[in-house]
Amino acid sequence: MSTPREFLKFIDDNAENFIKRLADAVAIQSVSSDLSRRDDVIKMAHWVDAQLKSYGVTTELRDLGSHTVDGVELPLPPAVLGRIGNDSSKRTVLIYGHFDVQPAEKSDGWNTEPFILTEGPDGQLFGRGSTDDKGPILGWLNVLQYHFENKKELPVNVRFCFEGMEESGSEGLDDLVIKEAKQGGWFDGVDCVCISDNYWLNTRTPVVTYGLRGIAYYRINVSGPGWDLHSGVFGRTVHEPMTDLVLLLSKLVDVKGNILIPGIDAMVAAADEDERAIYERLDSSVAEIEAAAGGKIALVDNKVDLLMGRMRSPSLSLHGIEGAFSGSGGKTVIPAKINGKFSLRLVPPQTPENVTPLVTKYINEEIAKLGSKNTISVEYLNGGLPWMADIKHWNYEAAREATRQIYQVEPDMTREGGSIPVTLTFADALACSVVLLPMGRGDDGAHSTNEKLDRSNFLQGSKLLGTYLYELASAK
Amino acid sequence: MSTPREFLKFIDDNAENFIKRLADAVAIQSVSSDLSRRDDVIKMAHWVDAQLKSYGVTTELRDLGSHTVDGVELPLPPAVLGRIGNDSSKRTVLIYGHFDVQPAEKSDGWNTEPFILTEGPDGQLFGRGSTDDKGPILGWLNVLQYHFENKKELPVNVRFCFEGMEESGSEGLDDLVIKEAKQGGWFDGVDCVCISDNYWLNTRTPVVTYGLRGIAYYRINVSGPGWDLHSGVFGRTVHEPMTDLVLLLSKLVDVKGNILIPGIDAMVAAADEDERAIYERLDSSVAEIEAAAGGKIALVDNKVDLLMGRMRSPSLSLHGIEGAFSGSGGKTVIPAKINGKFSLRLVPPQTPENVTPLVTKYINEEIAKLGSKNTISVEYLNGGLPWMADIKHWNYEAAREATRQIYQVEPDMTREGGSIPVTLTFADALACSVVLLPMGRGDDGAHSTNEKLDRSNFLQGSKLLGTYLYELASAK
Repeated sequence: MSTPREFLKFIDDNAENFIKRLADAVAIQSVSSDLSRRDDVIKMAHWVDAQLKSYGVTTELRDLGSHTVDGVELPLPPAVLGRIGNDSSKRTVLIYGHFDVQPAEKSDGWNTEPFILTEGPDGQLFGRGSTDDKGPILGWLNVLQYHFENKKELPVNVRFCFEGMEESGSEGLDDLVIKEAKQGGWFDGVDCVCISDNYWLNTRTPVVTYGLRGIAYYRINVSGPGWDLHSGVFGRTVHEPMTDLVLLLSKLVDVKGNILIPGIDAMVAAADEDERAIYERLDSSVAEIEAAAGGKIALVDNKVDLLMGRMRSPSLSLHGIEGAFSGSGGKTVIPAKINGKFSLRLVPPQTPENVTPLVTKYINEEIAKLGSKNTISVEYLNGGLPWMADIKHWNYEAAREATRQIYQVEPDMTREGGSIPVTLTFADALACSVVLLPMGRGDDGAHSTNEKLDRSNFLQGSKLLGTYLYELASAK
Repeated sequence: MSTPREFLKFIDDNAENFIKRLADAVAIQSVSSDLSRRDDVIKMAHWVDAQLKSYGVTTELRDLGSHTVDGVELPLPPAVLGRIGNDSSKRTVLIYGHFDVQPAEKSDGWNTEPFILTEGPDGQLFGRGSTDDKGPILGWLNVLQYHFENKKELPVNVRFCFEGMEESGSEGLDDLVIKEAKQGGWFDGVDCVCISDNYWLNTRTPVVTYGLRGIAYYRINVSGPGWDLHSGVFGRTVHEPMTDLVLLLSKLVDVKGNILIPGIDAMVAAADEDERAIYERLDSSVAEIEAAAGGKIALVDNKVDLLMGRMRSPSLSLHGIEGAFSGSGGKTVIPAKINGKFSLRLVPPQTPENVTPLVTKYINEEIAKLGSKNTISVEYLNGGLPWMADIKHWNYEAAREATRQIYQVEPDMTREGGSIPVTLTFADALACSVVLLPMGRGDDGAHSTNEKLDRSNFLQGSKLLGTYLYELASAK
């Protein structure tokens, strides 16, 4: 089913109104991690709810209960559920987005007031939440507005699930999704899912994302002294926890990023020529990735291996040490009770369940080899599964075809190194295809200062999302 | 010259008054690191000054200028200089002590109010500063009081140097000592120095201390990314600073405390049988040292090697990492700019000047071997020389003989693992023998909660200090 030309024109004709609406949304300081802003997150839920209603969407605000932060019990912001269309001859798509944002203060280094949407010289729309994830939510509203005002039926049935705790661990959402996926639930009958909450690889080429890495987070605990000791009095007298911990951490990963825990890297088959060709085609470069990292520190100097390191290989990062001296200056302490934190990013077929025995076995062997009198243990803290979708599914055909129509290019088909846990929840609970169809560019700075969404990405992205719905209706 | 029997009796007869005076001193909250208590430190200087004056000591309060803390300029508490006796046929001893104390709040875990001296069931005098270092200063006052009230001349000329910034780096003191050591200065003509500001090895046997370790403090800096990175997006993509730093730190010291930097351990000759015998005689045990550390974590299971590790060997301790994730919870950051801190404790003939080239050469070689694209450097931050005195000097003969008379035992002759920098300043500026003659026990908890000085140590210690002056007069 082809997208109405009037829809594309409607988006262009209403650009200023759409940007005005984005400014309204950005002005609500819905910072989910800031307890003093919780009322603003709830206000934002009501704002989204009212917008959906105004375009004929049936909605419900779903209470997700409360949580306790720093000893204070706070209500969770409600999730906004919506449904429009109930034609059993049409496909049904579930659309996810989040209306909460990361914290922002002008003093963090913003050039403009973070909660006042401000247009830059090259059409950048600067403001907290512009690209993550208010812009994409408003993209869907723009699509709805066209159909409502022109009395056009949508080409597919649509369900919405918008939440206000994504930046704070999506608390309460998993239970809701699992419950509503059941027969008679809000998401019963959903055929596919679309999430617009990630980014292009660069500033030029749109992407469709079909994979995310999982994670397994660990801690090595070392204790021995009853309290912190003076290094003058106890240096070369006792087994020092820091010595033991640093030796153990040094045995996990080498300078080149190879994981030294036997069996972990070996779980993932090497890429064949066909798979390497996928990465060869991606519009990216070593220089661009180094620019995004802020330093000329790429592990390898060819694009294919570098992208595969991020997207289809496991990784091990050391995050830090808790309990040791971490201030500036020169304290001469022997820390008594410390732990070192590291995590593995996982790719299929790895899971926290199948890698953890390898991790603990190896570290326990290394602990035994150390011969320290300190008490040392390794602990799995939490994790999440990797996710990878079948890119031949009609959901992906629709996303790719919509991209071709709007941008006149083949999208980069990407896997991402990070995790969006709700992706897997949807895929599992609904047993259907999930596609990630981003609106923003790789340099949008989602969690940074001066977050922006380019004007063209907002408008073309709105067209993309609408076109995707039309392509869904007919994709095979 | 033998100590007058009446002096010893005077101490016992006036015990309650002396403890009352100690309570008065403890009640002045002279916490040098607490800016809001600076007036109390200054008040304490005046209190000490008035006490000295009341016993015929000529005094001067010496302004040490000001310093800036957290942007606030504060006056330093004055040093109290004193002199009594000017008989050129007598020896002249300089006595050092400090009247400032560590912070203390009942809520830290004190069983009693920290600034109200409280006697425990076994004669412990609980209170902040009781043993560190108000008790010893008051020991000297007790000696002065006897001589003043009984119109007895002291057996030696005495100079005093009491400061109020010891717990905060002795700011301003070095310059004062160097200036007053010159001809015509307050310390001109001093023949020896006595410092009573350390502790017995245990709770039984008095010690005389003749050595302290020096220190050299270093930092390894690693940077690469322009900002902290997301480990999902950049894991196995870039050289991670934490990986590099942990690998370098793991090459400095082994689990057994051996220093892996070539040449450092080799600078110190192994102990011969005679020297081992010194440590064999010390009244200490592995169990006692482990109890002091709060864990069964001794590096070796024999007393001699354990004590030598502390007292006559260099040591290397890893203190912590600055700039990495150090909180609780599970942050998945790749820290961008970090440094790892470690220090060496030094023994003669080691100095910061002769070990630093070995440290930097080795670490630079290891950095080159790493092959990382991150920017890595090693930096010497600060240090201090080790100190060791000739125990055959008459100053030591006096200290040992005084100990034998008061305690009827041979003192443990110790070197300490830590540093008291002013010791070296006195030794160098005055070019004379310095002895450390402690009053308190090893379990006094100088910098901890429930600091105490045992009643018997206060009284016997006062006798010890007085007797030391008499022995000084005649020691050869």
